[in-house]
Amino acid sequence: MKNNSLSDDACLFNYSPGPAALPPEVHQHIRDDLARDGGVPLLELGHRRPEFSAVAEHSEQLVRDLLNVGDDYAVLFLAGGATAQYAAIPLNLGNKHRRFDYLNTGHWSERAINEARRYGEVHTVAEYQQQNGLWSLSAPAQWQFSDNADYCHTVDNETLLGFELPADHIRTDAPLVSDMTSNFLTRRFDLERFGAVYAGAQKNAGIAGLAIVIVRRDLLGSANPVASSLQDYATQDRAKSMLNTPPIFAWYVSSLVLEWTKRQGGIEAMEKNSIQKSELVYRCIDRSDIYRNEIDPLYRSRLNVHFRINPQSLEQTFADAATREGLIGLRGHRAVGGIRASLYNAMPLAGAETLVDFMRNFEKTA
Amino acid sequence: MKNNSLSDDACLFNYSPGPAALPPEVHQHIRDDLARDGGVPLLELGHRRPEFSAVAEHSEQLVRDLLNVGDDYAVLFLAGGATAQYAAIPLNLGNKHRRFDYLNTGHWSERAINEARRYGEVHTVAEYQQQNGLWSLSAPAQWQFSDNADYCHTVDNETLLGFELPADHIRTDAPLVSDMTSNFLTRRFDLERFGAVYAGAQKNAGIAGLAIVIVRRDLLGSANPVASSLQDYATQDRAKSMLNTPPIFAWYVSSLVLEWTKRQGGIEAMEKNSIQKSELVYRCIDRSDIYRNEIDPLYRSRLNVHFRINPQSLEQTFADAATREGLIGLRGHRAVGGIRASLYNAMPLAGAETLVDFMRNFEKTA
Repeated sequence: MKNNSLSDDACLFNYSPGPAALPPEVHQHIRDDLARDGGVPLLELGHRRPEFSAVAEHSEQLVRDLLNVGDDYAVLFLAGGATAQYAAIPLNLGNKHRRFDYLNTGHWSERAINEARRYGEVHTVAEYQQQNGLWSLSAPAQWQFSDNADYCHTVDNETLLGFELPADHIRTDAPLVSDMTSNFLTRRFDLERFGAVYAGAQKNAGIAGLAIVIVRRDLLGSANPVASSLQDYATQDRAKSMLNTPPIFAWYVSSLVLEWTKRQGGIEAMEKNSIQKSELVYRCIDRSDIYRNEIDPLYRSRLNVHFRINPQSLEQTFADAATREGLIGLRGHRAVGGIRASLYNAMPLAGAETLVDFMRNFEKTA
Repeated sequence: MKNNSLSDDACLFNYSPGPAALPPEVHQHIRDDLARDGGVPLLELGHRRPEFSAVAEHSEQLVRDLLNVGDDYAVLFLAGGATAQYAAIPLNLGNKHRRFDYLNTGHWSERAINEARRYGEVHTVAEYQQQNGLWSLSAPAQWQFSDNADYCHTVDNETLLGFELPADHIRTDAPLVSDMTSNFLTRRFDLERFGAVYAGAQKNAGIAGLAIVIVRRDLLGSANPVASSLQDYATQDRAKSMLNTPPIFAWYVSSLVLEWTKRQGGIEAMEKNSIQKSELVYRCIDRSDIYRNEIDPLYRSRLNVHFRINPQSLEQTFADAATREGLIGLRGHRAVGGIRASLYNAMPLAGAETLVDFMRNFEKTA
């Protein structure tokens, strides 16, 4: 975009971990809306205009419909992504005992824990570790919960290594809180077990700059006094997430992605697709002599399939060759390396199939 | 956008207070980039990709060039708008004495003050008040500064009533901090007098969802421990504003608006234009029998021209008739009523002229 030009790399499928692929129909819808003559241009639309109020109400209703969210939960659309919630969660839900349980399943868990430490005492319930070469957790029976935790936090899906632990499987009396950024809208879950669920939009629900927060209303209203008004969920709920000018365009994009999700058959269809796509790739890995996944099969992520290549020097070759064929975004996170294919909702089955074909061919010629 | 359709109201000129008009060239540039084949689609672009690094570096350089910002100041691009800085400023710059001076020149000053009270003692230096029917401040000689304030905060331009007080006219020993959201990039100022200057992008620098913060680096590094990592300017500076996924599309739009600003002749040209546009409208008001501006001429805003119509019942008629002619966004803020014309950088001179023609015709036929 410098010199007014975007990259010219071909992009057949975008496996980026997020910001990630959007459905082609959503791209087209946005282009159409931006090209429209007449009316206030989309990018100039104020949050108090009726056109945007309709978008906001529609988005909330879509989240409620897709995930079966009742009025006992607020649905918030907040600026700043999921990382902003790493502070907001203890500030809003952790002011009673100022003691919080956290499961540590990877990089984002650690980020959440470090943030929570500012606002209370963090107790780690269980921590991911390598056992026989596989990243795993101790047996759930060994997980140690606090007696008086304000909540128990987990990251439903860790993107770096692809570690998925559906939070509703956790047995604790404290309200569950889950960062679902990377598997939001990809699986059914029993909301009643949760105090809060939140997700940055840029993986399965839109573009960067917005987080969707679903939080039990009876837990609100006793925020830590050092919470800013923007961080205070009760205040945001009363203001319909418009305490200040919200990220209007990002919110609008989310409304389109939510609509698309519903048209595809909702969460049930998304869950089925995610299992099918990821199983294709895991099967290819498991049958291969050079690819190796390092996650306990119990916790393999449907959204981020991470693998190593043996010898490791082939990883760079693999990523470069893939890019040349238009398979974009496969390089692993700089902290861990390897190859990572992110298969969010907008990734079609053909994207997983094409990747598997590429992997098989690469193995043959490697 | 519900039922997939935006409003069909004609829009000749958009006088909205923000989100506000964008230059037509920027609209076109965005449409072109979104329509491009090949490459990672703009809306899927990750913040670690080289195309986006170029955007980020270019934006920072443009802010530095346009406003003469040296390396002793950090330039940050943060999610959440200016309101988020109402907490971040005391958290970052106010941890020494936890005592802050604030000028209160209107609604946004009050919002900033209420937020700062969470983190220290607020002393009000001067407060806007009505004198002989005009909103004004006491004489600057009477303003009372604290001896040990960590900083002195002001809102450079209050949008609701259109009250502009260029902060660098304030004589205090404390570092000045100014919310320049609505007059950012519209006037030259001596940055050396400021500890920090910040602005939500959605008026003169892009779309909603992003704030630009310029802050003296030697004031950083001693944030209040309750600041979250995203609120901590020093941490954001080290991370080049990418501590988490930033609002990528909003940042990209800002880069285009900054580029456009430079092409128009930079801040000097913008300042000249803003004076010319606003004087046209104020002259029309001052020569009229039915329009009345209620701001002390010393503090009249170049960006938001607010006026009452006598009799008041005509205000609704005025706004409705204007809308029918494609003059959008003229209704005053719901808290104060009246008519407000926002004349930000993207508003051409023709926009001010058209408004004045409309006002004169309306007065003749009223």
